[in-house]
Amino acid sequence: MKVPADREAQQIGLILRAWGVPAEQATVTVDVLLEADLRGIESHGIALLPLYDDFRRRGKLTVAPEIRVLRESPVTALIDGGGGLGQFPSVTAMRLAIEKCAAAGVGAVAVRNSNHYGAAGVYASMAPERGYIGLSTSAVYRPAIVPTFGTDPMFGTNPFAFAAPAGRNRPFVLDMATSTAAIGKLKLAAGRGQPIPEGWALDATGRPLTDPVLALEEARLTPLGATRIMGGHKGYGLAAMVEILSTMLSGAVFAPTRERRHPGAERYNVGHFFLALDPTAFRDAGEFEADVDDMIDALHAVRPADPGQAVLVAGDPEAENRARRSREGIPVPDHVVVAVRGIAEACGVPFILDAEA
Amino acid sequence: MKVPADREAQQIGLILRAWGVPAEQATVTVDVLLEADLRGIESHGIALLPLYDDFRRRGKLTVAPEIRVLRESPVTALIDGGGGLGQFPSVTAMRLAIEKCAAAGVGAVAVRNSNHYGAAGVYASMAPERGYIGLSTSAVYRPAIVPTFGTDPMFGTNPFAFAAPAGRNRPFVLDMATSTAAIGKLKLAAGRGQPIPEGWALDATGRPLTDPVLALEEARLTPLGATRIMGGHKGYGLAAMVEILSTMLSGAVFAPTRERRHPGAERYNVGHFFLALDPTAFRDAGEFEADVDDMIDALHAVRPADPGQAVLVAGDPEAENRARRSREGIPVPDHVVVAVRGIAEACGVPFILDAEA
Repeated sequence: MKVPADREAQQIGLILRAWGVPAEQATVTVDVLLEADLRGIESHGIALLPLYDDFRRRGKLTVAPEIRVLRESPVTALIDGGGGLGQFPSVTAMRLAIEKCAAAGVGAVAVRNSNHYGAAGVYASMAPERGYIGLSTSAVYRPAIVPTFGTDPMFGTNPFAFAAPAGRNRPFVLDMATSTAAIGKLKLAAGRGQPIPEGWALDATGRPLTDPVLALEEARLTPLGATRIMGGHKGYGLAAMVEILSTMLSGAVFAPTRERRHPGAERYNVGHFFLALDPTAFRDAGEFEADVDDMIDALHAVRPADPGQAVLVAGDPEAENRARRSREGIPVPDHVVVAVRGIAEACGVPFILDAEA
Repeated sequence: MKVPADREAQQIGLILRAWGVPAEQATVTVDVLLEADLRGIESHGIALLPLYDDFRRRGKLTVAPEIRVLRESPVTALIDGGGGLGQFPSVTAMRLAIEKCAAAGVGAVAVRNSNHYGAAGVYASMAPERGYIGLSTSAVYRPAIVPTFGTDPMFGTNPFAFAAPAGRNRPFVLDMATSTAAIGKLKLAAGRGQPIPEGWALDATGRPLTDPVLALEEARLTPLGATRIMGGHKGYGLAAMVEILSTMLSGAVFAPTRERRHPGAERYNVGHFFLALDPTAFRDAGEFEADVDDMIDALHAVRPADPGQAVLVAGDPEAENRARRSREGIPVPDHVVVAVRGIAEACGVPFILDAEA
C-alpha cells in the first residue's frame, strides 16, 4: 500500500495522541517517524508503532514525560527525557545544541532517561539546515552486537550519524548502525524468506547464522567489519564509542548490566548524544561548503566498477527516496498495515492509512 | 633488533635535528613516534623516517615550520602547520583543545597546511590524561581508499581515534584506519611474502587483489566493511567524514583534486581535527569514569568464542605492548634498521640503534 506522507502523519498523530502523548511531543514524534519513512529508512518510521505500543503496554514508557534540562553551560547541556519516547527529547536536544553552536561555535547535548529514538540521521541533518555540522549517537535498550572474540551481545546496533552542509549539493548525511547490517535488513530477509549473508549474525557459540528468523531471535549481530581479519574489532570499537557518548556521558543505563545495577527499574533509561559545530568558526562563510561540494562532485565522478551502478555519496539514496516518496507516497508493507490497523482499533481512533485521498 | 625506548628516541632526535627541525619541535615529534612504537603501532614509529626523509628530499616538507594560530574563540581554533611534519602542530592543537575544554567544557581545533601526523590514537589519548574525552582525525597526502561501487582511490586511510578516561581501568582508546586494513598490515604481509585476505584491496577494475606488493602499488584499499553487502558503504562514509572534519573544516587540500585546484603546490597541505570534551560538564566528578569501568569490566567478562582468546577492549593490545616494550625494548625490523642507518649516515649523525646499553 502506498500512503501519502500527510495521511501517514495524520495516522501516527491520531494514535500517539490517543495514547496520551501531549500534542507538541506527538507532533515532533510524527515528524521524525515520517522523515525516516520518506528517506526510505522504513524500519524507523511507522513500522515502529508496534514496538512502541509494546513498550507502552509493558509499562516501559511514560507517555506524557516531562523533559527537563538538568545541567547547562554556554556550550553543553544534559537533558532528562522523562522516560518517554526518544524523538521529542532528541529534537529538543539537537535544537539546543544548534542554539549553543550559533552562539559559541560548538554545542554538545546529552540525553538520559529516554528510549528508542528512531533514525539517527534525522537529528544529525537538522544541523546542516542551519549551516552547521551535526553528529548524533544513541544506545539501544536491547543488546544486539557481539564484541570481537565474544559470544554474547553487549551493545545495541548503536547508530551513529554525521551530517555536513554543502553548497550546490545536498548535505552529506552518514546514518549507520555500527553493526555490519541493521536489524531492519534482517527483518526484510525474514519477511522475504531469504537467508542472510554469512557474517551478519552469529549463534551462541560464535558461528555464523544465515537464517534471519533465528538471527533475530538470537540478537547476536557482528560489528561492522564482521570478522577480526576484516576489521570487526573496528566496528566493535565504534559501537563502544557510541555507548560511551550516549550512555556513560549522559548517565543513562548500560543495557547488559541494567538488571544487576538497577534491579526492578521500570524504564530502560536509554541515552543519546548530539553535537553541532559551526564551520565559520574555522573558515570564512561559504568556503567549507564549496570544499564539501568539490569532494562530493569528485566522488560522483569516480569511474564505477560496474557502469550500471554509479558511485554514491552518503545520503544520496535517502535524498532520492525522499523526492520520490514525497511525490508518490510511502510504501507500507502489509504486515505493518495490519499492525497499525490493530493499534488504531485498540486505542479507538480511525484507521485512515487506506482512506481515499 | 630490540632497541630500548630511550635509545630509539635519541636516534630519531639526532636525525630530526640534523635535518634542521627546531629542538622543541623535534622533541615533540620524537615523543609521538616513540609512543606509536611503544604501543606496537610499528608502521607509525621510527619506520616512518624513510617516508619523512623522502618528503624532505622532494621538497614536500618545511623542516623548521612556523606554527600559527589563525583563528580562535573560547572553544575553537584553527592552526597553520607551516608545511612541516604533522606531529608538532597536532600536539599543539590537542593541547589547545584540552585547554579550551578545561575552561569551557569543549575544545575543537583544526589544523591545515600540515603533513603526515603518525598515530591518531596518540593525540586522542592525551585527553584522558586530563580526565577528558578525546577525538582525533586526519586526512592523508595520498588517496588509498576506494569508494563503494568505484575503482579509484579518493581518501587516504583516514584514521579516526577516540579515547575516554576510565577509573580503575586504563582509558578506552580506539585508534583505527577507516580502511578495512591499515597500510602497515599490507607492508607486513609483503615483508613476509604472504598473500593478503581477499577483500582488503582491489585492482583498477574493482576486483580483489591478494598480492600485497601489487596492492601497495595500486593503493586501492577497501573501506571498512569491504563489500557493499558487508557494510563497505559505512566505512566509505566514515572515511568521507574524516576527510570533511580534517580537510574541509580546516581549509586543507583534498588530495584527489590537489593537482587540478592547486597546480604546482609545493606542499601536500594535509589537515587534521582534534576535539576534547569534559565529562564533568554532564556528570558529577567520577561518575563517568565509574560507568566506563562498568562497561570495560562487562566486556572483559564476556564469554569468549575460543577459550584461548579473551574478549579485548579498544586499547588493550596497545597497553600490553607498551608495558612489555617499555621493559624489553622495541623490536625494529632489519629493513628499518638498514634504512635508519642510511639516513643517519646521509645526514652525518651517529647510528646508535645497535649501540650497547
